[in-house]
Amino acid sequence: MKVMVGGTFDPLHDGHKQLLGRSFELAGHDGQVVIGLTTDQFASRKVHPIRPFTERITDLESFLKRKNYPVRWEIEPLNDRYGSAIESDFDAIVVSEETLPVAVEINKIRRGKNKKKVDIHQISCVLAEDGRWISSTRIYRGEIDVHGHVLHDTG
Amino acid sequence: MKVMVGGTFDPLHDGHKQLLGRSFELAGHDGQVVIGLTTDQFASRKVHPIRPFTERITDLESFLKRKNYPVRWEIEPLNDRYGSAIESDFDAIVVSEETLPVAVEINKIRRGKNKKKVDIHQISCVLAEDGRWISSTRIYRGEIDVHGHVLHDTG
Repeated sequence: MKVMVGGTFDPLHDGHKQLLGRSFELAGHDGQVVIGLTTDQFASRKVHPIRPFTERITDLESFLKRKNYPVRWEIEPLNDRYGSAIESDFDAIVVSEETLPVAVEINKIRRGKNKKKVDIHQISCVLAEDGRWISSTRIYRGEIDVHGHVLHDTG
Repeated sequence: MKVMVGGTFDPLHDGHKQLLGRSFELAGHDGQVVIGLTTDQFASRKVHPIRPFTERITDLESFLKRKNYPVRWEIEPLNDRYGSAIESDFDAIVVSEETLPVAVEINKIRRGKNKKKVDIHQISCVLAEDGRWISSTRIYRGEIDVHGHVLHDTG
């Protein structure tokens, strides 16, 4: 099946890797995965600085090449929350707990446009060593590394 | 992986069949599917009469035997919205659009009990011929059959 997933992926942490891994599993051998990568302009709404698109896409591509999933994939720039998920013909969207509402919204908009609704797969967040979510913000703050290891006591 | 799914399955319509089919796909060859089937007492909160558990389980079992999925499965009686989904060790729950909130709730309760949250897979509802959802209520009302064919003009 054709699966869509999106994110800023900065830095690419274990939560992202699980999100991508599950997307490829869902797509299956004859499937396709479209990965939306937020543009610098769209990602700038984040509370912490983001590395440029060119660096983020390089990391993402080298991760995907290393994994060598037997599934077709492509990366598309994401200028807003939806990207091509409103107009595209696809089967399932993979989201995290934080982005589940966006997927529900996408289905509402699709329904309004007489497009087939898509399956929504919400993966549960990967927990860091301290039992809280791995997130880019926590990594940026220096609380944890990309694998969720606690870097120092943040009291 | 181990997948849980639940329902009243009365009558077993094309929407249920898609829900079950996707659950088995997700579980994969080495996986397991646990199907919660509402007990008569729990199902009695529905607005229309429900056939007895024994009849519903017979239909469900014969459907699953006919499909012959290469995946282990079992049926458990569901006395409430959660069944064993709070305490069990499993990977993903498959829900319809209507029951997505229950899955989100299950993860909240699991989190409170220090249980691993599970992936949530919401399948989009199967549409009847008239573009509205296939549902047991509509079948009961005689608007559509189990495949979503419109039976008469309901004006």
